[in-house]
Amino acid sequence: MSRGDLDPKDWDLFRANAHKMLDKSIDKMENVNSGRVWSPVPTNLRNKFEEKLPVEGSTANNIINEILPYGVGNTHPRFFGWVHGAGTPSGIIADIASASMNVNAGGRDHVAPVIEKQVLKWCLEIMGMPIDGSGLIVSGTSVATIIAIKVARDQKIKNSREKGIIQGQLVGYTSEQSHSCIKQAFDVLGLGTDALRVVPCDENFEIDLKSLRKMISQDRANGFTPLCVVGTAGAVNVGAIDDLEGIATIAKSEDLWFHVDGAFGAAGLLGKLASDRLSGISHADSLAFDFHKWFQVNYEAGCVLFKSEAGHRSSFADRAEYLRGSERGLAGGDFWAVDYGPELSRGFRSLKVWAHLKEHGVEALGNSIDRNIRLAQYLENRIKSEKSLESMAPTPLNINCFRFASSSNLIGSNLDALNEEIVILLQERGIAVPSTTRINNQLAIRVNITNHRTQESDLDLLVDAILEIGEELIRNKVF
Amino acid sequence: MSRGDLDPKDWDLFRANAHKMLDKSIDKMENVNSGRVWSPVPTNLRNKFEEKLPVEGSTANNIINEILPYGVGNTHPRFFGWVHGAGTPSGIIADIASASMNVNAGGRDHVAPVIEKQVLKWCLEIMGMPIDGSGLIVSGTSVATIIAIKVARDQKIKNSREKGIIQGQLVGYTSEQSHSCIKQAFDVLGLGTDALRVVPCDENFEIDLKSLRKMISQDRANGFTPLCVVGTAGAVNVGAIDDLEGIATIAKSEDLWFHVDGAFGAAGLLGKLASDRLSGISHADSLAFDFHKWFQVNYEAGCVLFKSEAGHRSSFADRAEYLRGSERGLAGGDFWAVDYGPELSRGFRSLKVWAHLKEHGVEALGNSIDRNIRLAQYLENRIKSEKSLESMAPTPLNINCFRFASSSNLIGSNLDALNEEIVILLQERGIAVPSTTRINNQLAIRVNITNHRTQESDLDLLVDAILEIGEELIRNKVF
Repeated sequence: MSRGDLDPKDWDLFRANAHKMLDKSIDKMENVNSGRVWSPVPTNLRNKFEEKLPVEGSTANNIINEILPYGVGNTHPRFFGWVHGAGTPSGIIADIASASMNVNAGGRDHVAPVIEKQVLKWCLEIMGMPIDGSGLIVSGTSVATIIAIKVARDQKIKNSREKGIIQGQLVGYTSEQSHSCIKQAFDVLGLGTDALRVVPCDENFEIDLKSLRKMISQDRANGFTPLCVVGTAGAVNVGAIDDLEGIATIAKSEDLWFHVDGAFGAAGLLGKLASDRLSGISHADSLAFDFHKWFQVNYEAGCVLFKSEAGHRSSFADRAEYLRGSERGLAGGDFWAVDYGPELSRGFRSLKVWAHLKEHGVEALGNSIDRNIRLAQYLENRIKSEKSLESMAPTPLNINCFRFASSSNLIGSNLDALNEEIVILLQERGIAVPSTTRINNQLAIRVNITNHRTQESDLDLLVDAILEIGEELIRNKVF
Repeated sequence: MSRGDLDPKDWDLFRANAHKMLDKSIDKMENVNSGRVWSPVPTNLRNKFEEKLPVEGSTANNIINEILPYGVGNTHPRFFGWVHGAGTPSGIIADIASASMNVNAGGRDHVAPVIEKQVLKWCLEIMGMPIDGSGLIVSGTSVATIIAIKVARDQKIKNSREKGIIQGQLVGYTSEQSHSCIKQAFDVLGLGTDALRVVPCDENFEIDLKSLRKMISQDRANGFTPLCVVGTAGAVNVGAIDDLEGIATIAKSEDLWFHVDGAFGAAGLLGKLASDRLSGISHADSLAFDFHKWFQVNYEAGCVLFKSEAGHRSSFADRAEYLRGSERGLAGGDFWAVDYGPELSRGFRSLKVWAHLKEHGVEALGNSIDRNIRLAQYLENRIKSEKSLESMAPTPLNINCFRFASSSNLIGSNLDALNEEIVILLQERGIAVPSTTRINNQLAIRVNITNHRTQESDLDLLVDAILEIGEELIRNKVF
């Protein structure tokens, strides 16, 4: 029986406590349909954390029990904020095993790389990318994007790893609806955010290819070196899917790296309703997406995939002597993650992703995604049928942007403030969690459905509550 | 009872299966002292993963059960490879709660930021840094270093986020014993690895301050802009601690950012034996370290800390409209992690770190670290007492580098090959896991003790096995 300095003094007690926490956690998950979506952290619980640095140890379990209801709320069927996955209970089983193994999946010869390679192979197949491509499981799309654009950078300028960036040389392109993580990658990688050209969108919030072509040719004329174009498969504001085939054609003819930001949208390839519009992902040089969004894997896990292994590897492989591999022993193994990304120590993220795909199968995951797309259509119809509600953007995928406009003749910033207050009250009252964004410079209530628990009745309840709160605020002359 | 598309069809069965996995996992942890340290993944288990993409779901639990013995082995008391923490069983309880909450800790108003802020406050105190400083919990030191050097970069060149890098402008300094993640940060950030000047070390493998001063002044004379100096608190090869006070003085007088790589060594501040030599960390502008190494938190969790909050924030804060905060509701909260690092989606890493500090207290963690330092001294003495063994470097902290030299008159590459074979056989036979490195261009057996389960008897067993295997190889004329 292990008696390390930090091992339990009483293993039976430890075992009993762990089982208690598991039961509490499963209770929570089993009852996730009921109760409030979100509750602010009560002051007395908040205060429990304002402790001095603990010199002596004491149990943490009673406080952990208390925090369970005070998460983000994204496990609840009426959570529609930002783009959060709802997760699944089955993920807890993989996490228990991971915790007990305490693996560093940075490299070497053990079971974690075997599983990670298999997950990557499956993902290349799901995304229609070459099966001899490459990839890495990462924390999420933000890091995946940094890795992808770094590879693009290093492929274009062969000595950039050693020599660094020449200011004002490389430029990239993405639409005005693309996610801020693209801009951030340009910042982190030393290219500078000014080097990311923002291409206007058409009325469907998709990148305007004519403008893209024009901007590339202008940049060339001005002496810049076009590096990459980033297409979006599921834009964060309204869920728009760029014309990926069209971008691929331009990228090919212009010799640009074609990266796809498929943070949540790429998962649509698992289903039937959006897969046609996403098939252009197969042309991508690199793709970033999250497992913890529409795949419904528990936080956190994302992925970057590459058409070419050699390019991917050459941007990261550079092992020091103390990390040298060997033919045999633990330092063996043919897949060292440190050769493919910036993290040298890494947890065993691949296990929960593998278990999720194995446990549910891609058919069920795809059906759930398609059901979400249909729910967004259902909500769109409901919005159109309510005269107090105004649809603010098309609903090409799973996101509805609309506002409560009423008959009160509110305009401009007052209308923005009214809708923001509606969203806050929905949250504060624990009814539902949409978020907000701006569409054409007007504040919108934004309902994102990447939630396998949501039913039509949840959307009806949401709309009813928006109407009720909106009218209440007008009636009480708050606005 | 939740009936989401991906929720269990039979909650009682799910609950029973989760408890079974928990028992198996605790059995594994309870018996971690016994059995082989590492075993290669058996072919029949490996083959079980070579499956087609699962269309229909099926249970993953039986396979997860089978993989438990095939991790890295770093939970075993005779794991001494690289710098891996051994972890603690108590971490599994926090991971169970995290998995059920499925929190995205990227921002907003819920319990995760409350806990993360508290952990950061405690860490600033542990490290002797200003308590109004800043920080972020990250995956590990590699990402922490990228964040830290990015902040240094953006502080020195105010428009670098927008304009990018001017090639050949900024240069940084670190010792030849420093970790490859520093070099990688220069690569990722667009500074280029050539911009990281490699400063020679003295005979204790510590940075030579005279050379550092000279190199800075040469660079200035040649028109470069010195950006930062990176000190190492626990170098990966031998555990050397740079003269941090000395570096701080130079950094101050030269107006350089002072970053400390304390990946594992900074944890020594929890104990008594190394804390004097580590106290210079208090002068750092930034510090990177891991929780999953000497703190013994389960993989993965690391940290970056900053003296100044404003500088840290200004390198990352730049929220898009769909991420805007609000005064009230879920979009409230005064600590959004997205303002302090590149990850927009993030798991609830802070919970296991908080629970670990609370459960064990810093005294027990420090005692365990001090015990490891004493064990390294014990091993050093044992090595010196064996005439077949040759110590290859001093042992300033917790790492022993030595080799089996014997009386066989082997030299050069043959001696290197012999010692590599010894290490591989130790691993293959499941006896112990040291790793190798090169010291003064000669291969060394490297024993790193960041393991709260290791006892003197484990080190005796290691040395006995090295002697036995070495003599066996000589006797059989393998070398």
